[in-house]
Amino acid sequence: MQFDSLDDIRTFCRDLPAANRRFADIAAHCQQNLTKPPGSLGRLEDLAIWLAQWQGREQPRLDRVTVAVFAGNHGVAARGVSAYPPAVTAQMVANFTAGGAAINQIARLAGAELLIVPIELERPTRDFTEAAAMDTDEFLGAVDEGCRTVPDDCDLLAVGEMGIANTTAAALLCTALLGGDAARWAGRGTGIDDGGLTRKRAAIDAALNFHRGILDDPLAVAAALGGRELAAMAGAVLAARQRGIPVLLDGFVATSAVLPLARLDAGALDHCRAGHVSAESGHRDLLRELGLQPLLDLDMRLGEASGAGVAILLIRAALACHAGMATFAEAGVASADG
Amino acid sequence: MQFDSLDDIRTFCRDLPAANRRFADIAAHCQQNLTKPPGSLGRLEDLAIWLAQWQGREQPRLDRVTVAVFAGNHGVAARGVSAYPPAVTAQMVANFTAGGAAINQIARLAGAELLIVPIELERPTRDFTEAAAMDTDEFLGAVDEGCRTVPDDCDLLAVGEMGIANTTAAALLCTALLGGDAARWAGRGTGIDDGGLTRKRAAIDAALNFHRGILDDPLAVAAALGGRELAAMAGAVLAARQRGIPVLLDGFVATSAVLPLARLDAGALDHCRAGHVSAESGHRDLLRELGLQPLLDLDMRLGEASGAGVAILLIRAALACHAGMATFAEAGVASADG
Repeated sequence: MQFDSLDDIRTFCRDLPAANRRFADIAAHCQQNLTKPPGSLGRLEDLAIWLAQWQGREQPRLDRVTVAVFAGNHGVAARGVSAYPPAVTAQMVANFTAGGAAINQIARLAGAELLIVPIELERPTRDFTEAAAMDTDEFLGAVDEGCRTVPDDCDLLAVGEMGIANTTAAALLCTALLGGDAARWAGRGTGIDDGGLTRKRAAIDAALNFHRGILDDPLAVAAALGGRELAAMAGAVLAARQRGIPVLLDGFVATSAVLPLARLDAGALDHCRAGHVSAESGHRDLLRELGLQPLLDLDMRLGEASGAGVAILLIRAALACHAGMATFAEAGVASADG
Repeated sequence: MQFDSLDDIRTFCRDLPAANRRFADIAAHCQQNLTKPPGSLGRLEDLAIWLAQWQGREQPRLDRVTVAVFAGNHGVAARGVSAYPPAVTAQMVANFTAGGAAINQIARLAGAELLIVPIELERPTRDFTEAAAMDTDEFLGAVDEGCRTVPDDCDLLAVGEMGIANTTAAALLCTALLGGDAARWAGRGTGIDDGGLTRKRAAIDAALNFHRGILDDPLAVAAALGGRELAAMAGAVLAARQRGIPVLLDGFVATSAVLPLARLDAGALDHCRAGHVSAESGHRDLLRELGLQPLLDLDMRLGEASGAGVAILLIRAALACHAGMATFAEAGVASADG
């Protein structure tokens, strides 16, 4: 799968691969016969059906689960919008590689392989307050990086990111594509102080003004106002859609990264679930705009796919029940009003 | 640990074992040095500190995790308050033993041993609309069963239940001890229809009227208006407190079962976390009354410790990060504003 132009992406999003209703029906019917009151496993039941219909399998499976963490650097970091210096992006990539970060521990617990994908860290995007963050070729290159990261035979994909200053890019995408002012979407990210928050909002206002001519084009916005790791996450989510791989989105940045796809087609994220709602202030609102109900609400705001990684555990619980429970007939249990 | 009288329980609750603040401080300090913005793992950080302070260990552990499911039968079932016949309690116990229920799959996934404790299923409690469900000796016997179930060396205990008609007992305890009318607390349980719900509320009203003289005594209420599996859960929670074992409570029935303890002393549940908030209508309100914030909100309403069992996975994620992450110094990562 490769997108050679923005129009290629638009074409894909006009004719998206659909879920397999037959396998959804089979999974739903299976759930009805398991030894529990109908519906009593709540969202765990929905998750089993979701796996079946997107994997296109009568028996969904989670043999290969992949966590992909994309990393990028941002020109806007020079404007003092983060509590951490830009060098931390590469330092954290080294930490991921060495196994010392939260996502390493979470992925191991969840039985997931962890793919770390730094994208041209030595070449930050341009400062979007005064230029396009990426031109079309740079954007497509990052999208392609995301596409190529997704293994063909993966059963579930969790996507996340690392990139100092990238909550500024994420908030900018939300402001550009969903409206409201910078204050609606810009939060404290890794924990900036009041001065940093003021600079962050000013950067967003400046970027919106500079790019005001392109705001009605979601992909032009994704290129000019986004970031490489955000573009890569969008690419990974598109590749997963093509390959029948259900996706868990991580937090505010990951969700913002796929917002342009949802603006192209409201069904573009139907194969995705929100792993969690983060403590970053705009995330709950963004999920509501996208009609995504988060699986977890643990006040996390770390990024690096940590929330989606924890949510893998819930998907495993859903599948364990779906695949392992006895039916009423097998167990000799009377069903309701029996 | 054995309670020979209701006064023994009252005495224990007047002088409850406290958390170890020193180990809480050590765990909190450890969290500050891990490679993440301070606080960014949200409730996972709190959970690690909670484990440390109740286990009383510098390095908390989860080597032995126990899920205890207590089962009992209820005289009030004869009043048509459940969608299922009372025989289902024993049938589900057989299903637990055979490995076919949801909690079997969840406990295996969570690396927990599963203890199934049926309590005199052939001898339902008396119908509390016209008698005391249990006398003091019967109540203390069930409490003792709960105490004896908790392994001395367990690192985390999840408690849940099975008992046809036990959401009626649970709603009755809430109405008796927290006020409001039956409609505030009585929900559809396993899925009763409107007629069943009307009968359930009528049974609660009748029981409140019959027992109106004892409603200011939480333990008398637990005996006369509760059930054996509820009493056993209270016993298990007390034994866990004595032995330094943190507890995950399951849903509405499990939380109602320990409500009498909280009425004896507001700190009696400080070593407990609510594994989830269930779809049973009164549970969210009950958790709010107790100041317990649920870890999960997945629309589950199955009981049998299924929600608490899934929450074990979150505790494991919390510990994995706490014990496995690199510090800023170890990883060579700059800390904030560094």
